[in-house]
Amino acid sequence: MALYVQKYGGTSVGTVDRIEAVADKVQRFKQQGHDIVVVVSAMSGETNRLIGLAKGIQDKPNAREMDVLVSTGEQVTIALLCMALDKRGLSARSYTGSQIKILTDSAHTKARIQDIEVTAMQADLQAGRVVVVAGFQGVDAEGNITTLGRGGSDTTGVALAAALKADECQIYTDVDGVYTTDPRVVQEARRLERITFEEMLEMASLGSKVLQIRAVEFAGKYKVPLRVLSSFEDGPGTLITIEDDSAVEKPVISGIAFNRDEAKLTVMGVPDVPGVASRILGPVSRANIEVDVIVQNVAADNTTDFTFTVHRNDYEATEQVLSQVAEELGAREVIGDNKIAKVSIVGVGMRSHAGVASKMFDALADENINIQMISTSEIKVSVVIAEKYLELAVRALHSAFDMDVNDSVSE
Amino acid sequence: MALYVQKYGGTSVGTVDRIEAVADKVQRFKQQGHDIVVVVSAMSGETNRLIGLAKGIQDKPNAREMDVLVSTGEQVTIALLCMALDKRGLSARSYTGSQIKILTDSAHTKARIQDIEVTAMQADLQAGRVVVVAGFQGVDAEGNITTLGRGGSDTTGVALAAALKADECQIYTDVDGVYTTDPRVVQEARRLERITFEEMLEMASLGSKVLQIRAVEFAGKYKVPLRVLSSFEDGPGTLITIEDDSAVEKPVISGIAFNRDEAKLTVMGVPDVPGVASRILGPVSRANIEVDVIVQNVAADNTTDFTFTVHRNDYEATEQVLSQVAEELGAREVIGDNKIAKVSIVGVGMRSHAGVASKMFDALADENINIQMISTSEIKVSVVIAEKYLELAVRALHSAFDMDVNDSVSE
Repeated sequence: MALYVQKYGGTSVGTVDRIEAVADKVQRFKQQGHDIVVVVSAMSGETNRLIGLAKGIQDKPNAREMDVLVSTGEQVTIALLCMALDKRGLSARSYTGSQIKILTDSAHTKARIQDIEVTAMQADLQAGRVVVVAGFQGVDAEGNITTLGRGGSDTTGVALAAALKADECQIYTDVDGVYTTDPRVVQEARRLERITFEEMLEMASLGSKVLQIRAVEFAGKYKVPLRVLSSFEDGPGTLITIEDDSAVEKPVISGIAFNRDEAKLTVMGVPDVPGVASRILGPVSRANIEVDVIVQNVAADNTTDFTFTVHRNDYEATEQVLSQVAEELGAREVIGDNKIAKVSIVGVGMRSHAGVASKMFDALADENINIQMISTSEIKVSVVIAEKYLELAVRALHSAFDMDVNDSVSE
Repeated sequence: MALYVQKYGGTSVGTVDRIEAVADKVQRFKQQGHDIVVVVSAMSGETNRLIGLAKGIQDKPNAREMDVLVSTGEQVTIALLCMALDKRGLSARSYTGSQIKILTDSAHTKARIQDIEVTAMQADLQAGRVVVVAGFQGVDAEGNITTLGRGGSDTTGVALAAALKADECQIYTDVDGVYTTDPRVVQEARRLERITFEEMLEMASLGSKVLQIRAVEFAGKYKVPLRVLSSFEDGPGTLITIEDDSAVEKPVISGIAFNRDEAKLTVMGVPDVPGVASRILGPVSRANIEVDVIVQNVAADNTTDFTFTVHRNDYEATEQVLSQVAEELGAREVIGDNKIAKVSIVGVGMRSHAGVASKMFDALADENINIQMISTSEIKVSVVIAEKYLELAVRALHSAFDMDVNDSVSE
């Protein structure tokens, strides 16, 4: 008999029929004797509808009132789900973020959870009730409604699981788990049985957008076992957990992430003096452009080349900023390329395995793929290549690291 | 400089454009230096949309969750209106019923207001803010969301006006005031400058559905001056207030109400013994049929005839109930007519004027209209007639009581 916090996203509760299906799933868990706390998002499309109404009035809607508005989306879902549970003879009770209460700071539209009151929920669970909580929302110390920002329902789920010391936080979504890479690119991609929080963070930030990154950080911090599974089909999903040292066989690489929305810019012939990096990136950041990979090589002839990548949509804006900066710095020229892609291999195993990077470079060289930039972390190696080679590169790496073989899945 | 509580109904906030128009109106009052508390309903159609979702799950949705669900309707409107006010440079703050808080009992979907906390609202008004409150909703002592039932936003407006000791509670609607009778029937019908609470209650319950009856009762009890006016055009509307004895000229009759949705049933030849009325009406009431006018005449030959009216939709159900009852009572027969209408004259003036009823009967006789039933109260005389005479009767009475002449309006 376990306590599960189950989070169902917007697609999983997108229609009355799907809400009924969620109720069926919850009923099955209850019949097995488990205690269930459900966290739900707004029905898919609803949040956008509400934002549309607001934008019809103000381009940049008042943040406090925006939270009052969009928080109604999840409130509708909790009520409907409780009705569906009631219909099945299950005792259930809904709670808004204010009712629970999920105390946050006052940063409207992007609030952070500070505390969660568990007394009422525990009493409900004790009484055999299913507790249904509106995701994504909270209340500040003055009683104002707040929201955690897009995707915040995952965070609500993890925070509730941590506060209630749940056995597992289950995130139900429209995929059946975390894959070694995108199955649309590599047919042999396979679902991972488990993955560590750190690997998941690297995978998430690199474009495998299964889970909201803050929720994974939160789960890692509070050591809440997190499971990603499908709302629509049965299956064990992928367990995201702390590193399990007892595992005898551990694959070196867990997954391959990639991102094709990048563009690369280089300021050539920058004087090699302290403070240059910030004089280049400062104006970029002030233009609200986010920078991803940054590479600066050793200097030659007292000048150096400074390269970084940005989102492809920001390519032209960045070029403009840099042409100004280059002039001020007396740099030689600015060159760029917006037909690039980033490919990363991720795995905690590479910490203790030498040669992972060189194996990656070899695999790419075998396919005649030129590496334009390299950037590494403890558990990740990323390369930037020409976009046209992306699929080839991902498939080559998937095969080189023996990921096609389903050796770690023990269903 | 006055404090006004202004209530805008669903049609008045039915679109983003109409919400902008409400904001314009509020802005004009603020510019005149008044303090404004606004109460809003859900955007028209929204409550029905939400109820539709619930009915998609449960025929008789769980009442607690129904309140959680439908209360989102007004929450959307308060946020959008505050955005529209913000856009105009007005400082505004929205409150749900829970936030204010509007304390009610726990009778979900038909809760009654018990108390209203005014501290936060008074601080906002002091700081020059417009306060925007979700109508129709409250919170019980345990923190559960409650609603006051359909039309409850009027009640919220009046209750806030009473709690804040406002100078006036203004109910903005899609008509420009209370009329002597329905202008669609009598072209000469005119808007009343003022009307007493009691008259309004008789008018409202008789089919002039401008205001929710509970709101009028509430306003009368707490002596809150209530004004009905149009959201869409300027004008003084109709002031509903306590009887003003200082008025020198007072019309005997304020208005003519009518209702064509009635049906009449008579149990003939009922034994004239105690307890008969309840033996007839008990089974009717248990069948959830509401009874309107009841008339029982003096007995002859130890039997009497018992007549009452019901909503026309309940006619056949009532006939079935009565055939059973008549048999048990040994009554002679049950007869009925579902082509009837009720016409009532209403006015506090008739208290001190003899002959009002006979003047009414004369006017109807002059048109050869047969009166089938008569029922009277202190300030009202109602007659039941054949439906085909309804328009003729209303026009005849409107003229007989000199209501066509616009003598009491002093704009």
